[in-house]
Amino acid sequence: MYRAPLSEIAFTLTHIAGLEDLRSLPGVEDLSDDLVEAILTEAGRFAAEEIAPLNAIADRTGTPFRDGAVTLPPAWRDLYHRWIEGGWNGLAADPAHGGQGLPLMLYIATLEMWNSGSMAFSICPTLTVGAIEALEKHASEELKATYLDKLVSGAWTGTMNLTEPQAGSDLNALTARAERQPDGTYRIFGQKIYISYGEHDMTDNIVHLVLARLPDAPAGTRGISLFLVPKVLVNPDGSLGARNDVRCAGVEHKMGIHGSPTCTMIYGDAGGAIGWLVGEENRGLACMFTMMNNARLAVGVQGLGVAERAFQKALAYALDRRQGKAPGDDSKGMSLIAAHPDVKRMLLGMQARTQVSRAICYACAHAIDRARLSTTAEDRAFWSDRAGLLTPLAKAISTDFGVESASLGIQIHGGMGFIEETGAAQHLRDVRISTIYEGTNGIQAIDLIQRKLPLAGGAHVKGFIDELSALAAAAAAHSDAGVKALSDPLSAAIADLGRATDWMMEAQAGGRVAEALAGATPYLRLTGLTFGAALLTKGALVEDRDPKATAHRRLLARFFAETLLVEVGGLARDVMGAADSILSYDPMALAS
Amino acid sequence: MYRAPLSEIAFTLTHIAGLEDLRSLPGVEDLSDDLVEAILTEAGRFAAEEIAPLNAIADRTGTPFRDGAVTLPPAWRDLYHRWIEGGWNGLAADPAHGGQGLPLMLYIATLEMWNSGSMAFSICPTLTVGAIEALEKHASEELKATYLDKLVSGAWTGTMNLTEPQAGSDLNALTARAERQPDGTYRIFGQKIYISYGEHDMTDNIVHLVLARLPDAPAGTRGISLFLVPKVLVNPDGSLGARNDVRCAGVEHKMGIHGSPTCTMIYGDAGGAIGWLVGEENRGLACMFTMMNNARLAVGVQGLGVAERAFQKALAYALDRRQGKAPGDDSKGMSLIAAHPDVKRMLLGMQARTQVSRAICYACAHAIDRARLSTTAEDRAFWSDRAGLLTPLAKAISTDFGVESASLGIQIHGGMGFIEETGAAQHLRDVRISTIYEGTNGIQAIDLIQRKLPLAGGAHVKGFIDELSALAAAAAAHSDAGVKALSDPLSAAIADLGRATDWMMEAQAGGRVAEALAGATPYLRLTGLTFGAALLTKGALVEDRDPKATAHRRLLARFFAETLLVEVGGLARDVMGAADSILSYDPMALAS
Repeated sequence: MYRAPLSEIAFTLTHIAGLEDLRSLPGVEDLSDDLVEAILTEAGRFAAEEIAPLNAIADRTGTPFRDGAVTLPPAWRDLYHRWIEGGWNGLAADPAHGGQGLPLMLYIATLEMWNSGSMAFSICPTLTVGAIEALEKHASEELKATYLDKLVSGAWTGTMNLTEPQAGSDLNALTARAERQPDGTYRIFGQKIYISYGEHDMTDNIVHLVLARLPDAPAGTRGISLFLVPKVLVNPDGSLGARNDVRCAGVEHKMGIHGSPTCTMIYGDAGGAIGWLVGEENRGLACMFTMMNNARLAVGVQGLGVAERAFQKALAYALDRRQGKAPGDDSKGMSLIAAHPDVKRMLLGMQARTQVSRAICYACAHAIDRARLSTTAEDRAFWSDRAGLLTPLAKAISTDFGVESASLGIQIHGGMGFIEETGAAQHLRDVRISTIYEGTNGIQAIDLIQRKLPLAGGAHVKGFIDELSALAAAAAAHSDAGVKALSDPLSAAIADLGRATDWMMEAQAGGRVAEALAGATPYLRLTGLTFGAALLTKGALVEDRDPKATAHRRLLARFFAETLLVEVGGLARDVMGAADSILSYDPMALAS
Repeated sequence: MYRAPLSEIAFTLTHIAGLEDLRSLPGVEDLSDDLVEAILTEAGRFAAEEIAPLNAIADRTGTPFRDGAVTLPPAWRDLYHRWIEGGWNGLAADPAHGGQGLPLMLYIATLEMWNSGSMAFSICPTLTVGAIEALEKHASEELKATYLDKLVSGAWTGTMNLTEPQAGSDLNALTARAERQPDGTYRIFGQKIYISYGEHDMTDNIVHLVLARLPDAPAGTRGISLFLVPKVLVNPDGSLGARNDVRCAGVEHKMGIHGSPTCTMIYGDAGGAIGWLVGEENRGLACMFTMMNNARLAVGVQGLGVAERAFQKALAYALDRRQGKAPGDDSKGMSLIAAHPDVKRMLLGMQARTQVSRAICYACAHAIDRARLSTTAEDRAFWSDRAGLLTPLAKAISTDFGVESASLGIQIHGGMGFIEETGAAQHLRDVRISTIYEGTNGIQAIDLIQRKLPLAGGAHVKGFIDELSALAAAAAAHSDAGVKALSDPLSAAIADLGRATDWMMEAQAGGRVAEALAGATPYLRLTGLTFGAALLTKGALVEDRDPKATAHRRLLARFFAETLLVEVGGLARDVMGAADSILSYDPMALAS
């Protein structure tokens, strides 16, 4: 069973990701250590005691669909109501609408625990929080007044409606239509697919945020507008009125996250769903990007949360199961499998990946907080760039590591790992989607090289790499020999990162776009491994109160450098050397 | 849908794995090109037309268990009977019992296709073939006369009964009992788990091979005997008699291979199951190893077969789905996703891994054939060592690559990959077990370093590495610049392999067993990647009739060197550098 890793979460927030920095910013001055500890402790309790035991239930029952309705397991409905009673939904939302106005970093730390409890459950509030952010930033005061309180409390849930059958990664191809009405509202028509929690029976209303095109909109993504379309229309007094013309046409049968209904939504097949514009006409993509950036971080946190849960399960099994004889074990009988070197390697591999994901996700949340709260335009611009740079890393590295960790978790269980009752397989089946949705990890890599490397004319990433070098220098100057030893491999990796970054920027500046694209995926991994090693090094520099914890963090940093960071040399050669063969591959010619 | 890659299969058999070498050996002189082509063509047709369309059916229905009986989908029963009518079961079996006596290489090539058709289906005949091999080598003439014809024809199927709840990787802990009877038979008692096709309704008898202990047996694996225990007793005239005292107590709910019933078998709870000794008392493990070695290769072929199927599916999708705009595509509308550099990388990654798995598995089968058929004791010993060396590589690399390829196949499908109806997810769910059973890949790595590196006093692996160097030299001397360019990265990898191998042998010779064990898994991958690159290079040296195929093989070899072989430097550092941190990890202390 899951136990929230509270000391690692608190340590990462404080000593690696920079929670302390926030306390000088407006609105965060009063954030006391006691409050942080109280929030984390109670969230950990709720995730472990209330959510985690229900994770397997909906995996087995799924979310049956019948006559337009989606039924969730009754235990999940109860859980959701206890969860919103706890006030968890509005942790980072504006106090003007009932939120607690806490930093995103704290929300992300709790989100990790919700996802360890159950990724399928957590998807629902994650989408609601995304809707809250989009409305807070872009909606009219009238829309805010009508919807935000309900979304912040969790009384209603929110959804994101982007994808259509022909428009997935490429939203240019989006065809859902919106027609202006004389009363200022819009009528929405079209089909959306893969809508998580598009329909369910946990709340009495659902607020859909829907991308659609106006009749006179320009082609492509500059002609997309964002609309709020409630499942049930809201009367002027706030009470619920008639059903809107939107319905669920079915749910998908998926490899995992069976507890999260993935809906096909039909808008307007009985005259048009009534919608309200969010932001300006034809500027919907910018509004949606507000949601999408934070949603990308949130998906990274799914990878993190599932990886932590999978690790705990594998560790518990390895400390219970006995097979064979480990070297040096002179006791009678078989050894715990946790004593076998190859199993230790797998356990450390899971834990090191998980700790890196935690550090990167929290650091990304920290950057978003500072971009929002900093008092000078210069600071806000810098941290906005930093958040932009870290978002694709947080999303892709944490989800890739999530899949790798869940798969290692199965492996440690041996044959038991393949048996569904064990639960190890569910973690892999669940987390497998996280490398795909909210922009595939390939899209994240393209985002990183095409939009993030050029930030501040290329100066931002250079400064970022200099910060990593400073950490390597700090390790080199450390008195502990183990910490000191982290410096050389980190410096070597940073040198590879520097070379690969120069190559990427030159390729793109020189119009060799295809060559750069061919190396995007290994470039992202190279960057993430180096950044991850630097963050583990940052943690290793700190002498914690608990010497056992300090020693273990230093061990993890060293293990990561010796077994994962060693990939970096090969990745740099791949980035800079494989484009020609990749681009000369013509699958069309060979298939004919 | 699946199409058998006949030209790649034939090319790999002939030009990479060494089918030609066999024709000078007794019993293979008459193996004509026409016969080989006829067998491969007909197997490919059967796999594509008969097996492949049924792969999804049993995934959905599973194999329901009720009152001791396991029901397979009726379509599968029909398929099985068409399959044995085709004579496929006895391809490599002794003609004295109705087999065709063909080389194992050809059987392995057909086995690839059966697994591409359906891994869950193919498991049944794979186990039967294992039982045939064990009985051919170790059973009395009487047992052979009673059972072999039926097993070779496929009229009856075979099983392997090793695992018990407390005895998985470690057979020392095995507790199933056997008692001698006055009539020379034995009574068998105990519970076995994870028995594939332990019960089913496709044939009227099932021949179980069961490991159990005699009352006076020594402890550990030197006290294990092998018994033949039929589901239905066979009368002296060959007709079927009474049910034996063995029953299925249930089937597992698994992540994948839903069409393959994984049974819990109970022996002897009504007085004792009647069994016959195979081989000598207390020598059962040696007999079982006969089955296990070929079963390990067969599991590698599962990884290969599923990877090929997953690749074809992903390629077809990538040549159909349009999203975004690939660089250099000036046409109207969206590009095929196969035109995007990152998708090309994934497709090449799948195909290169698949081709390497094919080459390694076929090379392993070739070694087994030569170990069996060679006319001098020296040759047989050499090829027996070579088969021993290649078996853990074929098993572990092909199944790791199978999982990686199936996961890439999902990724290429985007959101569709997570939807079960698409079929991409099934490939990952199915193949995920292959890294676990027949000895986890961690066990394969231990087998490689502890039992295979010391073969011929360490001379065998050194000779093997010299052969790889000779291939690098041949590439260096080649007239084609692309082939020539394969030499340097291969030579560099071989140098890393040499260093890591020396380190491993020295560590073990010096009693640093735990250090060697800590590096076993990356050592196996290092060896497999280098061997794989060498085999692709061997193929690239050949000028095929089809210049397009030649060019594509050379491209794959180059791509593999640039994107996968580049891991080798980091792996060598991991092997030689990470033991200390791994061994200093004490999960027991941290958990307390």
